[in-house]
Amino acid sequence: MHTPVLQNDLFLRACLRQTVDTVPVWLMRQAGRYLPEYQETRKRAGDFLTLCTTPELACEVTLQPLARFPLDAAILFSDILTIPHAMGLGLSFHEGEGPVFAHPVRHPRDLAQLAVPDPETELRYVMDAIRLIRHELHGRVPLIGFSGSPWTLACYMVEGRGSRDFQHIKAWLYSDTSTLNGLIGLLVDSVGQYLQAQAAAGAQALMLFDTWGGSLSTDAYFRFSLEPMKQIIAYLRSCPESRDLPIILFTKGGGNWLEGMAESGADVLGLDWTIDLGPARARVGAKVALQGNMDPMVLYGAPKQIGREALRILESHGSMAGLVFNLGHGITPQTPIEHVAHLIDAVHSWKGRG
Amino acid sequence: MHTPVLQNDLFLRACLRQTVDTVPVWLMRQAGRYLPEYQETRKRAGDFLTLCTTPELACEVTLQPLARFPLDAAILFSDILTIPHAMGLGLSFHEGEGPVFAHPVRHPRDLAQLAVPDPETELRYVMDAIRLIRHELHGRVPLIGFSGSPWTLACYMVEGRGSRDFQHIKAWLYSDTSTLNGLIGLLVDSVGQYLQAQAAAGAQALMLFDTWGGSLSTDAYFRFSLEPMKQIIAYLRSCPESRDLPIILFTKGGGNWLEGMAESGADVLGLDWTIDLGPARARVGAKVALQGNMDPMVLYGAPKQIGREALRILESHGSMAGLVFNLGHGITPQTPIEHVAHLIDAVHSWKGRG
Repeated sequence: MHTPVLQNDLFLRACLRQTVDTVPVWLMRQAGRYLPEYQETRKRAGDFLTLCTTPELACEVTLQPLARFPLDAAILFSDILTIPHAMGLGLSFHEGEGPVFAHPVRHPRDLAQLAVPDPETELRYVMDAIRLIRHELHGRVPLIGFSGSPWTLACYMVEGRGSRDFQHIKAWLYSDTSTLNGLIGLLVDSVGQYLQAQAAAGAQALMLFDTWGGSLSTDAYFRFSLEPMKQIIAYLRSCPESRDLPIILFTKGGGNWLEGMAESGADVLGLDWTIDLGPARARVGAKVALQGNMDPMVLYGAPKQIGREALRILESHGSMAGLVFNLGHGITPQTPIEHVAHLIDAVHSWKGRG
Repeated sequence: MHTPVLQNDLFLRACLRQTVDTVPVWLMRQAGRYLPEYQETRKRAGDFLTLCTTPELACEVTLQPLARFPLDAAILFSDILTIPHAMGLGLSFHEGEGPVFAHPVRHPRDLAQLAVPDPETELRYVMDAIRLIRHELHGRVPLIGFSGSPWTLACYMVEGRGSRDFQHIKAWLYSDTSTLNGLIGLLVDSVGQYLQAQAAAGAQALMLFDTWGGSLSTDAYFRFSLEPMKQIIAYLRSCPESRDLPIILFTKGGGNWLEGMAESGADVLGLDWTIDLGPARARVGAKVALQGNMDPMVLYGAPKQIGREALRILESHGSMAGLVFNLGHGITPQTPIEHVAHLIDAVHSWKGRG
């Protein structure tokens, strides 16, 4: 296979804290419902899961935002719940409610039914999508692969859906840690092999989405969310295909634990908007790059305010080195498209310290 | 009116960082659905709002947990949304969905219709409940009054209900700050007068519940949540009835901003479980007392684990001075009652440094 030369390596350079002359920017959920062309493909697919599991459609929507905006990275269009779906938990998506599993994991005996999915068979549609996207990208920008973190996947698997208080999994956490450890261990293996396979298929950076780590106490976060992610990172560093890829760790609501995350082996820490980049940089030193962290709701405001807020965030970091601009959470469906263009322009125009 | 001598002043002493020989404990939402006697009164009331607005019923449920457990404080049974309800926004509670306003504030012209409610007329049922509870308590433990914070009330008033992303109020925040400032200013006056009236009616400590402050960026938190709360605290310090009362400030998800909160004039900072008491104490010094911070979900675990987790939290603080034990959020409906007794006993048995 002929691999075209990467034309825009800003994102990869920033992840590895190499010199850049422009701060790279991409947006979580950049291939999403705010784009009419996405809505059109989604309609054609019939349902969300078909969109995720059909490589041609996943490739199509992955590329859509790149046709509109000068984004510095593509991210695989997929869902964080592909692994439990492959384990047979019966995933479906309900309008306005999010993902639901028909067969949540509620008893230790449920756990015995589960096995690590083989990425190239049971999750082959993801690997095929990556290969297709890489081909279609022609080296324009790098492609990010991703997975949900073990704790986040475990939350959905045990609760069966999104939750406010995580009653079932926390009952395990505070009474039956051996069962919880069994589930987390299975997910460490599954996520590790899944991300390694994504790297082998062509992903050029890997991101761990720890959406629910922020629901934990400090003690529980370190034991049940961060430690499993560290094990995955160590595994990825041991595989030739993934060894040198930038790894991004994003715990939503994890602002209290940056020092611990910076020791995880990840190259980049994702931040939400509740913590400023300047103080975050002061806490982690030069150990990692930072990615973030604008409140997606800023994009509902006036263009002048969007530029001002982007500038406030960039100036808070000060230096251009080791900075990837992003939102602090996924872009939302009612976002005006022209505001996105305005934001990207504001970030690309900024010149900070080298 | 004859005021009986307070028999248990542990809570007030801890709030003011005076010496104690036992760490006081109370639980957010201690008068709530996990108690069968509460369910019974709630049923008799017909609906939640009637329960809140009928002083005899509010008094009854306020006292229920005190009859079961050796709690060190009572908290007025009420809702954080009494002020917007009094403003005429049409509050109702929908099963499994939480509060809904029939007339949310969506336009600057809606704002012109709103006025500061007079506490002794429009919110008289709250003051009557406080007077009745004080009478019925016979000085057993102190009574805490409370209000939602201006930012939190504004969130509900503009969104019309709970929200995941606060789209409408954040559109104001990022484009029309003059309208937002108008609403927040009105709420500063309303909350200030409301809490002062609660003090005059007999509340012995006052708490600001800033449930949604944690949804903000640091910059926005300081401007639109913390600053308004500071103004309220300054007002309460200027009124003879409230001047000397302990004031508790609780921003859920506010762990990044403790230093700022400690400068607010509050006596006590409430903490959720995402930050440990030890590091929190190190950051705020001896300026304030701390209240918290066990994950309510710990109460779903095994009794041995509950005791262990309580001990971990207490030992993290180390000193008995300036510590009020609580959960980091309200106790939830399925909590086993006997686990609550176990927790309170564990806290009361602990002896830390003086």
